Amino acid sequence: MDRLRKHIEEIVDLSDEEFEYVKSFFVLKRVKKHQYLIQEGDQATFEYLILSGIFRMFYLDEEGKEHIVQFAGENWWMADYQAYFGEKKATLHITCMADAEVLCLKLEGREKLSAKLHKMEHFFRVKLTKGYVAQQRRIISLLAGNPQRRYEEFGRLYPHLMQQIPKKYIAEYLGVSRETLSRLYSNPK
Amino acid sequence: MDRLRKHIEEIVDLSDEEFEYVKSFFVLKRVKKHQYLIQEGDQATFEYLILSGIFRMFYLDEEGKEHIVQFAGENWWMADYQAYFGEKKATLHITCMADAEVLCLKLEGREKLSAKLHKMEHFFRVKLTKGYVAQQRRIISLLAGNPQRRYEEFGRLYPHLMQQIPKKYIAEYLGVSRETLSRLYSNPK
Repeated sequence: MDRLRKHIEEIVDLSDEEFEYVKSFFVLKRVKKHQYLIQEGDQATFEYLILSGIFRMFYLDEEGKEHIVQFAGENWWMADYQAYFGEKKATLHITCMADAEVLCLKLEGREKLSAKLHKMEHFFRVKLTKGYVAQQRRIISLLAGNPQRRYEEFGRLYPHLMQQIPKKYIAEYLGVSRETLSRLYSNPK
Repeated sequence: MDRLRKHIEEIVDLSDEEFEYVKSFFVLKRVKKHQYLIQEGDQATFEYLILSGIFRMFYLDEEGKEHIVQFAGENWWMADYQAYFGEKKATLHITCMADAEVLCLKLEGREKLSAKLHKMEHFFRVKLTKGYVAQQRRIISLLAGNPQRRYEEFGRLYPHLMQQIPKKYIAEYLGVSRETLSRLYSNPK
């Protein structure tokens, strides 16, 4: 739980007592490579803070084709948020790409923490802000970016993920063919 | 400013004194059709709450092609958030599609309000949450949705905008050709 405290204290300072309260809402879960955190149709009970490992979240279309919405590594938060905030069943899948530890937080706990501690409401707002900006950028990249530009942007923003994630998933995430991606890998600017 | 109070009080109740404080951070601006709220290269000083009118926010690529990131109507918040939160120059354009009134809020004011009033931090967190979920859905739709499905989803989510916005912009937003959109209009399910 030290990692949780460090993570939160990058944004707000907590007293020992406050942190005891905060941590009481989190449950640690270990996940093996290829395991699912959640699958379409499951109740989206938790939001996840990733302590270690890598995940990908994707939508599976009628033809069984994966569309990757997001990757997440250490210190990232991840959930099928439409389902989580709406307390509905998931429409997305989250699967583990490297053995992982995550902290699970229920919506009820998130809201209670936010209501009780202004600091935690601030923490969650700051985190959402960063996520919102990243998503706005991703929408622009999907609308307007050519493969070269998407590849460069991904490498600039997530150099760590670039090295750890198999190329076929990066190609999927970027919406480019594997051939195009291989060409970009071998001819970086 | 009554509309501002009503809008905020959909989420949190404010005392008269609190509302006086809140409203001191907002400045009213009237915008005519075809006017820009912000253009690429401008300092992204404000976030906008739209009281009336319709706007579209778009990215202009090197070839001068518009890529619509978002529409916004009454009671929506809008900004080039990457630039606004990062206090940088805008990379997006926001233009008025029907005569409008907006309330402008500086980042400094937003942060001060959030720090001073837990209720306002809560308000902004709830708003961001809704925006985050809408964006996650848009990403999925861009990745996986076929034109028919995107069109239906847009009509379901935003029936009001569907009637008010010229078809060519809806086609752009959905990433479909105008011919495809016309076909969908004339053959709704």
